[in-house]
Amino acid sequence: MEKEFLSDDFILHSEPAKRLYHEYAKDMPIIDYHCHLPPDEIADDKIFNSMTEIWLKGDHYKWRAMRALGIDESYITGTKSDKDKFMKWASIVPQVMRNPLYHWTHMELKNPFGIHHILSDKNAEEVYERGNGKLNELSTNTLLRHFKVEVVGTTDDPIDNLEHHKRIASADIGVKVVPSFRPDLVLGIDQLEAFNAYIDLLEKALGKNIESLDQLYAALKSRHDAFDSIGCRASDHGQIYLYADDYSESEVRSLFAKGRLGIMLSPEEALKYKSAVQYQLALMDHAKGWVQQFHVGAIRDNNRRLLTALGKNTGFDSIGDYPQIEVMSKFFNRLDSSN
Amino acid sequence: MEKEFLSDDFILHSEPAKRLYHEYAKDMPIIDYHCHLPPDEIADDKIFNSMTEIWLKGDHYKWRAMRALGIDESYITGTKSDKDKFMKWASIVPQVMRNPLYHWTHMELKNPFGIHHILSDKNAEEVYERGNGKLNELSTNTLLRHFKVEVVGTTDDPIDNLEHHKRIASADIGVKVVPSFRPDLVLGIDQLEAFNAYIDLLEKALGKNIESLDQLYAALKSRHDAFDSIGCRASDHGQIYLYADDYSESEVRSLFAKGRLGIMLSPEEALKYKSAVQYQLALMDHAKGWVQQFHVGAIRDNNRRLLTALGKNTGFDSIGDYPQIEVMSKFFNRLDSSN
Amino acid sequence: MEKEFLSDDFILHSEPAKRLYHEYAKDMPIIDYHCHLPPDEIADDKIFNSMTEIWLKGDHYKWRAMRALGIDESYITGTKSDKDKFMKWASIVPQVMRNPLYHWTHMELKNPFGIHHILSDKNAEEVYERGNGKLNELSTNTLLRHFKVEVVGTTDDPIDNLEHHKRIASADIGVKVVPSFRPDLVLGIDQLEAFNAYIDLLEKALGKNIESLDQLYAALKSRHDAFDSIGCRASDHGQIYLYADDYSESEVRSLFAKGRLGIMLSPEEALKYKSAVQYQLALMDHAKGWVQQFHVGAIRDNNRRLLTALGKNTGFDSIGDYPQIEVMSKFFNRLDSSN
Repeated sequence: MEKEFLSDDFILHSEPAKRLYHEYAKDMPIIDYHCHLPPDEIADDKIFNSMTEIWLKGDHYKWRAMRALGIDESYITGTKSDKDKFMKWASIVPQVMRNPLYHWTHMELKNPFGIHHILSDKNAEEVYERGNGKLNELSTNTLLRHFKVEVVGTTDDPIDNLEHHKRIASADIGVKVVPSFRPDLVLGIDQLEAFNAYIDLLEKALGKNIESLDQLYAALKSRHDAFDSIGCRASDHGQIYLYADDYSESEVRSLFAKGRLGIMLSPEEALKYKSAVQYQLALMDHAKGWVQQFHVGAIRDNNRRLLTALGKNTGFDSIGDYPQIEVMSKFFNRLDSSN
Repeated sequence: MEKEFLSDDFILHSEPAKRLYHEYAKDMPIIDYHCHLPPDEIADDKIFNSMTEIWLKGDHYKWRAMRALGIDESYITGTKSDKDKFMKWASIVPQVMRNPLYHWTHMELKNPFGIHHILSDKNAEEVYERGNGKLNELSTNTLLRHFKVEVVGTTDDPIDNLEHHKRIASADIGVKVVPSFRPDLVLGIDQLEAFNAYIDLLEKALGKNIESLDQLYAALKSRHDAFDSIGCRASDHGQIYLYADDYSESEVRSLFAKGRLGIMLSPEEALKYKSAVQYQLALMDHAKGWVQQFHVGAIRDNNRRLLTALGKNTGFDSIGDYPQIEVMSKFFNRLDSSN
Repeated sequence: MEKEFLSDDFILHSEPAKRLYHEYAKDMPIIDYHCHLPPDEIADDKIFNSMTEIWLKGDHYKWRAMRALGIDESYITGTKSDKDKFMKWASIVPQVMRNPLYHWTHMELKNPFGIHHILSDKNAEEVYERGNGKLNELSTNTLLRHFKVEVVGTTDDPIDNLEHHKRIASADIGVKVVPSFRPDLVLGIDQLEAFNAYIDLLEKALGKNIESLDQLYAALKSRHDAFDSIGCRASDHGQIYLYADDYSESEVRSLFAKGRLGIMLSPEEALKYKSAVQYQLALMDHAKGWVQQFHVGAIRDNNRRLLTALGKNTGFDSIGDYPQIEVMSKFFNRLDSSN
């Protein structure tokens, strides 16, 4: 029964599918242009302390399922012990059948943990102990090599000093780990206080004033160069849609200066600013031959109460249904017009 | 052939499906949280006069098919005899093959009428007579019991005095029939004349003036209590989308007073009023542990000419394609913020 | 292998499908209410000069695939020889597997060219020569008859003098070829310069001034009559959505006059003008019993640089994601209101 559920031919429903997977895909390396692995843990070649730390911590997909099933937050992101948290997750696994979490859970237990059980509160204790017993063999970098990861791009703020990436580069871990440039906060002028706090940090990081748009562009260029020199070849942009309004350089110069003085922009003004910076970032990427990645449409932080309590990326984003195509067309046409 | 089309394994395409249906689902009761059965007919344990009255009257899905196929309105909602209407429906049934109406039609003839024919004008006369011959055994409440209905929630306006529900409750018919609270008209301030006529009726029903927002909320609370006391456990809301604009209580107080004086609100003002009332209704439901049901996105009464001639819910609604998610997120976040 | 890929039962996956196709559909005529065949080529019974001219020229679906695969524009719409263009297309065909272009390509080679090869650069030369050898047997009108075309409606601007259609009508080619009335440019008042240039052409075509809305309607009516008299029975409208704003005749009269004086309308004003003309065109069609066809939602000419270089309909349109239903409902209700 367990064997059938996750046999070596799992989701391979035809002979060509089996052949393509077993003869071609199976031994290929992973080249992951976009992930959220923490570079400090890779630099430290971290050994995890428990199944909970390696397998549940930060996995907001599992968290959502637990919340939907009424589990108290203390077992999810709260103060309960690692073991209590694990037992609670195990107890609801049977209820996520038909959700991809059910497959993921059992694929993950199988590889790398070598555990073939169908997880539930009946075997949770045993699984927890057996998993914990493997942790010494499963440091971050052992895992990366185990899964044949060849290249991985993490997600990094322009302000990041890249110290972890420098340590990784010098350690020769057998996996190429490079940063990706994620300048979302530079566009967030409509949340003015957070925006100015962020630009202040950027000033501090560079030891330079950023009062004008030209100074902002110079600061971004400087960080862009630093990312490039350590191997970054992609930027990454999370937005509800692409910003492609019409604007003149001179008006955007005024708008940025106005924002830096703490004067709130109107939504139309904010959109002009964003459209200008969006385009400028595209020029920088193009100049260096980087790839530009967009995540459009997600509505983030829908639950403001738990945003305050738990922070961002804790399981409260949703799919959005914004019209996307007209602005995409305008943005891509703008890029094409200037080649 | 007929047997194959609607065998006992109809739409059960696998062995697990057959097992799940025949061993588990088939004998389960129906608990219907949302329907449009007329409570007066249940209270009267009505016996229908013809196949047309029991089976075609009010079925605006069948009406739409007839209109699409060019049938004159006199055979649909007009003055033709019950028999003429039935014969006309029967004559177009072969043309709705591949539409769910085709399956529904034959499932309905099979159960409860015990007729296994594939309906067409060839056998319409016989089907009409055989169906009519069964009507005495098929009163409203016999039907509810026949289909193992355990609970049914009808759809009721706050103004409804619930007399039929009281009669049903005292009659002990073997089925729990409760009202659902549908306050759509309370939100309809952008059709001001109809809105004020409706609020006037609410005044009359309660014997109290409704000139202020607080009086409106008190009136709704009073009806909400009355619905609750007779077993209502759900409200039901038909809207193009959720109303979740920002507003202050004081400005909405002015807006309602303004509307009651017959002064048309701007679309922005109307949205503020709706957003406030939407939230207030959610608080009332939460206080009593009711479920709140939303039907969002339908565009109703697309054909204004036939709305005037035939009234609402006569087959002229359509699916809408409004963006829904941002306003949903805002509304749910508002509810979460105040727990 | 080739035989299996495109056997006589291609995409017929069940016995009923095979029976429906081979016993019913296969010998039916083609009645095509909407196509873009050029009437001059039909009137000339044109013989094509090469496989490239008959099979690739103007086929912007194939062009898009070539561009996506990095082929230089000179091989697509540029100055390379017909043979070079053909060889380039052939070389990328293996890469479009899983795209419908792959099926289309091989269905087209099979019929009418009688070539059963799977096209690639390995056999491109042979296919080119064999195809070229058939061109004398494949004039436009031979092709129409070969595919059992019974009626075809081309796409024609109201300004068109219909000379080619008159030549076709008098030549008795065994296929009914009629124009379709496509007045998109009459609605394009928001691109004012092009709009006025177009109305000037309409003036010239009719020898009459068009300064007022009534004169515009009279001009359109005159062309509509001319199209009708040669067999046109349908109009055809490409728009991002239906125009159904509220307007008064008198304000639209002013707006058109204003536009003719070269004064740019606001977006709201333009929408009123479009809504009025949209409705007027529907009345004309209804008066003559024409069918009105709408293509809504496409975003055209996304690449402005290549629009300038290559013109319209060269492979730079995309699907749009505009909300459509509310405006459709409003427009259809407006038509229904006046019957």
